Amino acid sequence: MTPGYAINKIVDALPSIKISIEPEDLVCYGFDASGLEGSPSAVVWPKDTGEVVKVMQYAWQNEIPVTPRGAGTGMTGGSIPLNGSIVLSFEKMNRLLELDSDNLNVIVEPGMINGRLQRELEYLGFFYPPDPASMNFCTIGGNVAENAGGPRALKYGVTKDYVMELEAVLPNGEIITTGVKTPKGVVGYDLTRLITGSEGTLAVITKIRLRILPLPEEVITLLAMFDNLEASGAAVSKIIASRIIPRTLEFMDAETIAAVENFKPVGIPGGVEALLLIELDGHPSAITKEAGKIAEICAALNAEVKMAEDIAARNKLWEARRAVSPALYNLSPSKINEDIVVPRNKIPDMLKGLRRLSEESGIKIVNFGHAGDGNIHVNIMADRSDAEKYRKAEALVKEIFTMTLGFGGTISGEHGVGITKASYMSMEIKKHELDLMKGIKNVFDPKNILNPGKIFI
Amino acid sequence: MTPGYAINKIVDALPSIKISIEPEDLVCYGFDASGLEGSPSAVVWPKDTGEVVKVMQYAWQNEIPVTPRGAGTGMTGGSIPLNGSIVLSFEKMNRLLELDSDNLNVIVEPGMINGRLQRELEYLGFFYPPDPASMNFCTIGGNVAENAGGPRALKYGVTKDYVMELEAVLPNGEIITTGVKTPKGVVGYDLTRLITGSEGTLAVITKIRLRILPLPEEVITLLAMFDNLEASGAAVSKIIASRIIPRTLEFMDAETIAAVENFKPVGIPGGVEALLLIELDGHPSAITKEAGKIAEICAALNAEVKMAEDIAARNKLWEARRAVSPALYNLSPSKINEDIVVPRNKIPDMLKGLRRLSEESGIKIVNFGHAGDGNIHVNIMADRSDAEKYRKAEALVKEIFTMTLGFGGTISGEHGVGITKASYMSMEIKKHELDLMKGIKNVFDPKNILNPGKIFI
Repeated sequence: MTPGYAINKIVDALPSIKISIEPEDLVCYGFDASGLEGSPSAVVWPKDTGEVVKVMQYAWQNEIPVTPRGAGTGMTGGSIPLNGSIVLSFEKMNRLLELDSDNLNVIVEPGMINGRLQRELEYLGFFYPPDPASMNFCTIGGNVAENAGGPRALKYGVTKDYVMELEAVLPNGEIITTGVKTPKGVVGYDLTRLITGSEGTLAVITKIRLRILPLPEEVITLLAMFDNLEASGAAVSKIIASRIIPRTLEFMDAETIAAVENFKPVGIPGGVEALLLIELDGHPSAITKEAGKIAEICAALNAEVKMAEDIAARNKLWEARRAVSPALYNLSPSKINEDIVVPRNKIPDMLKGLRRLSEESGIKIVNFGHAGDGNIHVNIMADRSDAEKYRKAEALVKEIFTMTLGFGGTISGEHGVGITKASYMSMEIKKHELDLMKGIKNVFDPKNILNPGKIFI
Repeated sequence: MTPGYAINKIVDALPSIKISIEPEDLVCYGFDASGLEGSPSAVVWPKDTGEVVKVMQYAWQNEIPVTPRGAGTGMTGGSIPLNGSIVLSFEKMNRLLELDSDNLNVIVEPGMINGRLQRELEYLGFFYPPDPASMNFCTIGGNVAENAGGPRALKYGVTKDYVMELEAVLPNGEIITTGVKTPKGVVGYDLTRLITGSEGTLAVITKIRLRILPLPEEVITLLAMFDNLEASGAAVSKIIASRIIPRTLEFMDAETIAAVENFKPVGIPGGVEALLLIELDGHPSAITKEAGKIAEICAALNAEVKMAEDIAARNKLWEARRAVSPALYNLSPSKINEDIVVPRNKIPDMLKGLRRLSEESGIKIVNFGHAGDGNIHVNIMADRSDAEKYRKAEALVKEIFTMTLGFGGTISGEHGVGITKASYMSMEIKKHELDLMKGIKNVFDPKNILNPGKIFI
């Protein structure tokens, strides 16, 4: 592939489309939240599907790699462009195109910010559950590409559970529409679910119809503070075993709490070894009863339980939760961030195993995440400036994944595979399954121009 | 393909496996609820995955078509074998292999009867929502293959929303495992969702891990009887618009009611033009309030509303609902049964359109189904014995599909494509999307031996 000549002509070849080849744009669009970097040769901001088609036709004819990009908040490098390639940025395709309140769905363009959609819907009495921690920045297109999760996944599922219909452009520039406008539909293979979570490797998403829900009547937010790490894990299991499905069941360990208190204080007292941020929604009397039961369970495990008294108090707790990732990066800018999931009753064992690995290696491991799902964000706090320690930290990743898979878990719960996990993929996905996936990729993208170098290596 | 010689040797070639080539078995396993028939050359009852592997290896080497079969309750001919082929029947692989109450999931073999799983789980305080009308006969394997729905899909989604992990055998005999044991997982393409609903054309499912839920605390069942068809459609829209999502919102028109009263009387008074069977579940005070609101909405539309006073009364109503399909077949054994879905606010227009088609053609059209989803089972009551009328009835199908698609709907909500809808598929699925699906089929099954002649023609 020698895209050099054609890429230099792209500005002339597509004169009606906003394209930059300026170095400052190429740098800004070359990195994302994974900390990785690439050097694209052009950044394109299409304003509609027709422009995406033109870009893809040009890329297809000239065999130039294309990387679609939302807000660049992905953790595994899914939006890192190949050197010399085209970045397709969806900042100008960010509108809410349709709200169908009778049939409970919306159509959005891929550049729509998740948090903006949330707020617009809430104002009208509707609810879009998926809420990645980066919701105030990340785009719905990126959410669909990565099949993003978030705290509320425990009760409400992840992005794929809300995608009804997709308009997308194939690598060769053909437009496809997948899925249905209705809650049910079984005509042919489920291309919608296949494209959702495919990390921009199968087709460029240009329109998304999402299922929405009525806004829950009431929300109760509880904070449970434990003096013992294992007790918090036991609380998670006991809550679920008591037949309560909260909408969130978030976990932070002592190191995470300290990092947040340092970065954005919320007043967690010293001596707290773990906390759970638990949120219930639904009918007021139902969730009041459930909240009481949860408080009992946590108290029996020696936790101190507080209820957020108003929206401001609730928002403060959630701001703290959403500040976890930046707070940890602030402590250790080159920390290694994993996103494992284990069956939820294996959380205490997994946390014990992580502590053992940390003690043996002498490297701090900090954990937080979606305990209700068994989804733990494991942060290996190493710094690139200490080369030997960093190498040791990288070696820990494989040990953590082995342990995770041993517990029946998965190496990526909501961050995707991208570049950073691609070399570990064969630990989880065996040869025949991987061959099927590669076969599917080849059906969609025989020239391998769409986000190459991701998922598969 | 000349499978004749090899198929005759299958009994000798696989001596440890239960196989029949007796005419009475070949007849019994040659038809299903679609009314279609095929003439297989062998019926195989594997008892474990290893035996499925052996059968598929033999079929692959000898290029013999194989049709996996659950209970044969499918409506579109998905389990009809090609002449000369092998039927793979899962009656002996029908066990509940594991119940993980901590992590809320079960592993079942494909031959497990849906209703049996429901009852075993309910007894233990758990809940598996998908409830096709044939639930007392149909298998979970068939449900997964067809992505079966049912009344409760309105609140709880369809089969695909519960499938976490699949073990399956590829056409060449290789075993694959797809999906994860955890609520989240984003490593690679979603093969689980791709196989779910693929109507036995991609892989033979041998084990299924299903998500389960805690059993809802309480259920309320309401029957609303309308003196006017359009009013029942308006009630559906108003209920959803009032932010209530019942677990079922079932619809029957006057003809359906008459057929059921004739077949299995429940005592619906004369003069009822349409009824809604509405079920709510959840916290007692929440659903009591919602039931009151629904009763108000229906009463304002001049309906008479009754509440089932006990479990016996509720079961009687549901038995009547589940008797609809047999009752209509009883009236007209060769009726044409469609399974369209329209956005739910288009139901009144669709029903009006169907009435117009019925009046113009002089052919009775009877409608019932899952109104909350917009999923209407349209029954064209024609008899094969009247050849000209039957031809006219078949011509109506295309008009009904055109109308459905015009309203933004789909031609199959939960019955699949199989054989009966294959020739209409291109009305809904356009060329590029169809090419992708065929490409995917070719990746899984390059010899086209797995359930050939289904979905694609």
